[in-house]
Amino acid sequence: MNEVLFTNIAQLVTPGAGVQRGAAMRELTVIPDAALLVSGGVIRWVGDRAQAPGTPHEHDLGGVAVVPGLVDPHTHAVWAGDRLADFEARVQGVPYEELLARGGGIRSSMRATGAAGVAELVNLARPRLQALHASGATTVEVKSGYGLDFGAELRMLEAVRALQADFALVPTLLIHVPPTEGRAKYVQAVCNELIPDVAQAGLASAVDVFCEKEAFTARETRAIFRAARAHGLPFKLHADQFHAIGGTELACELGALSVDHLEASGPAQIAALAGSGTVATILPGVTLHLGLPAAPGRALIDAGGAVAVGTDLNPGSSPVFSTALALALAVRLCRLTPAEALTAATVNAAAALGLSDRGALVPGQRADFLALQGPDWRELPYVLGGNPVREVWVGGQR
Amino acid sequence: MNEVLFTNIAQLVTPGAGVQRGAAMRELTVIPDAALLVSGGVIRWVGDRAQAPGTPHEHDLGGVAVVPGLVDPHTHAVWAGDRLADFEARVQGVPYEELLARGGGIRSSMRATGAAGVAELVNLARPRLQALHASGATTVEVKSGYGLDFGAELRMLEAVRALQADFALVPTLLIHVPPTEGRAKYVQAVCNELIPDVAQAGLASAVDVFCEKEAFTARETRAIFRAARAHGLPFKLHADQFHAIGGTELACELGALSVDHLEASGPAQIAALAGSGTVATILPGVTLHLGLPAAPGRALIDAGGAVAVGTDLNPGSSPVFSTALALALAVRLCRLTPAEALTAATVNAAAALGLSDRGALVPGQRADFLALQGPDWRELPYVLGGNPVREVWVGGQR
Ligand SMILES: [Zn+2]
Ligand SMILES: [Zn+2]
Repeated sequence: MNEVLFTNIAQLVTPGAGVQRGAAMRELTVIPDAALLVSGGVIRWVGDRAQAPGTPHEHDLGGVAVVPGLVDPHTHAVWAGDRLADFEARVQGVPYEELLARGGGIRSSMRATGAAGVAELVNLARPRLQALHASGATTVEVKSGYGLDFGAELRMLEAVRALQADFALVPTLLIHVPPTEGRAKYVQAVCNELIPDVAQAGLASAVDVFCEKEAFTARETRAIFRAARAHGLPFKLHADQFHAIGGTELACELGALSVDHLEASGPAQIAALAGSGTVATILPGVTLHLGLPAAPGRALIDAGGAVAVGTDLNPGSSPVFSTALALALAVRLCRLTPAEALTAATVNAAAALGLSDRGALVPGQRADFLALQGPDWRELPYVLGGNPVREVWVGGQR
Repeated sequence: MNEVLFTNIAQLVTPGAGVQRGAAMRELTVIPDAALLVSGGVIRWVGDRAQAPGTPHEHDLGGVAVVPGLVDPHTHAVWAGDRLADFEARVQGVPYEELLARGGGIRSSMRATGAAGVAELVNLARPRLQALHASGATTVEVKSGYGLDFGAELRMLEAVRALQADFALVPTLLIHVPPTEGRAKYVQAVCNELIPDVAQAGLASAVDVFCEKEAFTARETRAIFRAARAHGLPFKLHADQFHAIGGTELACELGALSVDHLEASGPAQIAALAGSGTVATILPGVTLHLGLPAAPGRALIDAGGAVAVGTDLNPGSSPVFSTALALALAVRLCRLTPAEALTAATVNAAAALGLSDRGALVPGQRADFLALQGPDWRELPYVLGGNPVREVWVGGQR
């Protein structure tokens, strides 16, 4: 059953398995001179090298630190077109409304994505997913949401399905941009056609909604969540990015997997998240790229919340092609400690996807792990711009 | 004379040769479907592919954008030891004084670097320089400055000399940390022993001083600059990082190559730089890593200054291992436009090192250029966390 003992691990570092809340996010296990036994893609034993069980197959990891593979719980990695003209104009002070008037903004991504076939979407997304993988992401969530119509949404999800041959991906149906007219009818169709179709085809693991002044209301969100639940799909939310309009409280009340963004969250939203089973996912790349306020990562943990971190990889607001950088930015911009950031990017990010089988290096978990460049795991949150990850192992395979 | 015509360039983008000030920093030349003729390591011709001179040797660059190689004008890439414990403690709120009391801070880097031999310093610096090279840096400045004594300073510069076999490096003697006692004597010895020795051995291209409340005064800086000039060495300055104590004005008055940091510069310092021939070098990695204010890049350019950008790669305040990321951060944190950031990271960074033979893709300049991943050069300032650089060409060679 191809059992392998990984040895010459200077330091094996892991959070506990399952979601970690509040101060528990800082409690890492650090084993010096460790070994890791893997068979069938699953971790069988972890501990001091001197106590390791004997096995014919050993693999020497070269004396570096080993941490769990990262989980990126929030990306929009499938898109066509580019937003480089928008980027250049925006940093020169052109307002977003003017960008929209010039044919830019999110609707330009929707036009380009809507016009692309599945094969083109796959080809465009592949190098982005390779970059995330090289940065240490062993599981990546990918959302739909640039569809001009339901057909385009389904093509985005079909592209994710095709890419699952090469990457461990979690597809999410994102209800992102309301139509300019007939939104009541649109929400009805989402609930009565799109969600049932996606559920039946098994194209998504969850349903996400963008709840914001310029997007969907809390009332519309509730209807969509109900439809998701009726079709056996968990749900999650983009909320409090610019305005706290009740989405976070609703999501916590209904048992959403996660609420993501939270830059505009105040004490009421922080309390709702801390008092619920819902994960709070922060996306510091948006803060860096757009120069907007950071999500209150520190306050969420201090209140007892479970914080996860992701890249939010997308062309308009977060061109962050490294999950390790998102982890490093959470320390600088959202005041997480290095230990909390590792927990946020592993077990808590997995929990934000409803997964409890990965993110920790303990027996029974998937053998997804990273061999870093050096012997001290803290290089992972410390390094900016370089790649602190030497080798990415998924299910015990490179 | 091994002449090569580089073809299939979707877009060749360059600032003008030589230092660019104020609005001229935004004036890039963009040639679609371009070609680039190189011989003897020097650019001979640049223009429209259809008008290119015939040559037996062609090299197809694959339809991507080409920009000048980046120049990193400010690094401390030679050090021993690490500052990971400092990093972890600092982000948990431990004050710098307490880090020093625990044996951390810059003096821990000085102890470790002082204890290392030249060969060890070379081995430690090599992967850092490889990371900067991979990110697009074709010329990199490296400073001494962690020496506990003059012998250690010389070993750092000897390490840089050894690394020049593999990288285009510009060595700088940095007068960094005053001794706790006998500083008048120390400054005298710097002027009468260290600078003459370094000049005689040809170990440095310039002399740098850290002018700050906790470091050297403007008066001490003036004495060191005089000694540098007397030995034929140009000079530059770390100034206004925390307090504006007159160093910037002094450096501009005496004709320094550059003043670097400038986070605490106000209108008087901005005016001094804009009215001088001295380059203003900003280091946005420090802003991101330490959460300190950003240098006024936008105001410096608007006042007519020449702005350069660098990583400031060092273990304590800027673990930024990508020159391209420094360029990208200058846009986000210091409000440069993408075009200004490219100029800051190429010709202006070269000018900060006293070099006018590189940084622009025009005839007569060194053939240092980058083939990017895609056809639009704006991916270079846009991408965060990934590497927008596919190929790095130095003197027409990979
Ligand atoms: Zn998103
Ligand atoms: Zn410096």
